[in-house]
Amino acid sequence: MKAVIITIGNEILKGRTVNTNFSFIGKLLTFSGYNVSLGIIVPDNLDAIAAAFRNAAAYGDLIISSGGLGPTYDDMTLTGFARAFNLNLKLNETAFNMIKNKFDKITPEREKMAIIPEGSIPLKNDAGTAPGVYMEIDNKKYIILPGVPREVESIMNNFIEKIRIKNYVYLDESF
Amino acid sequence: MKAVIITIGNEILKGRTVNTNFSFIGKLLTFSGYNVSLGIIVPDNLDAIAAAFRNAAAYGDLIISSGGLGPTYDDMTLTGFARAFNLNLKLNETAFNMIKNKFDKITPEREKMAIIPEGSIPLKNDAGTAPGVYMEIDNKKYIILPGVPREVESIMNNFIEKIRIKNYVYLDESF
Repeated sequence: MKAVIITIGNEILKGRTVNTNFSFIGKLLTFSGYNVSLGIIVPDNLDAIAAAFRNAAAYGDLIISSGGLGPTYDDMTLTGFARAFNLNLKLNETAFNMIKNKFDKITPEREKMAIIPEGSIPLKNDAGTAPGVYMEIDNKKYIILPGVPREVESIMNNFIEKIRIKNYVYLDESF
Repeated sequence: MKAVIITIGNEILKGRTVNTNFSFIGKLLTFSGYNVSLGIIVPDNLDAIAAAFRNAAAYGDLIISSGGLGPTYDDMTLTGFARAFNLNLKLNETAFNMIKNKFDKITPEREKMAIIPEGSIPLKNDAGTAPGVYMEIDNKKYIILPGVPREVESIMNNFIEKIRIKNYVYLDESF
């Protein structure tokens, strides 16, 4: 099974931040039986994000993105993802409850994090606020994660068993 | 001017190595006046490398790759680059002399590092053996670098003045 990793964020392209999410995800997928065959890094820009998801869908069976998930206007990954595959974004009850449990008060910014594609599943984020998002489209799996490394690690460590290739043992000694 | 950074190497996709070359190049280009608008990471595979260069050419004015330049059979970046743009690879005298100056004896593996696209210019590598390669095609600039970080830094620090956007001062406080 082929995997594609997408990283979203100007700070990575500008070299302000080293892309440790990429190596964390790459290693986790490799040991879980996937062949990571492509990486795409795009800025916080709707068209670029949508194009990245469409290109990734042409290459991989599993597509994982990190970055651009959160309360502010420049967190536009889900809008770009929805644009790529013509999906509707909608307030998700489960996601809303996950967020409500973390705060006394719900602001529009906080509610925004519960607005995810129809048909997708929110993934619990024990290390932060924005839930991850899991979705299957045309037999391909998508996982959309925030950009904060400890949140990426927490969500993925919780979820990896669900997507691990069964009975796979990594034996490539060149690793 | 838009720039695209390509990283070539299985070790990056598998998460064995953190992509510090990307952040070094991204920062250097940002401060030199370029808008780094895309990153592409591909394995040591000819078709993938050729596709990466062709895709990068559609997005950027300056394309910089790191990785896959060197003496061994899995160093195939120049072959992929040549395939992408239908170029001939040929022993380059200047590159050959750069390499000859570093060794008592020339082996086929060492000679391989002097075989670069016709019309390209070798870039001196003070920190290692394989020269970098600079080429202009259809008004776009290509810089092809080895994968070892200190070699990337040495070649780029030597060469950056040649491609810096004139009179550019980086003022974005969000950096």
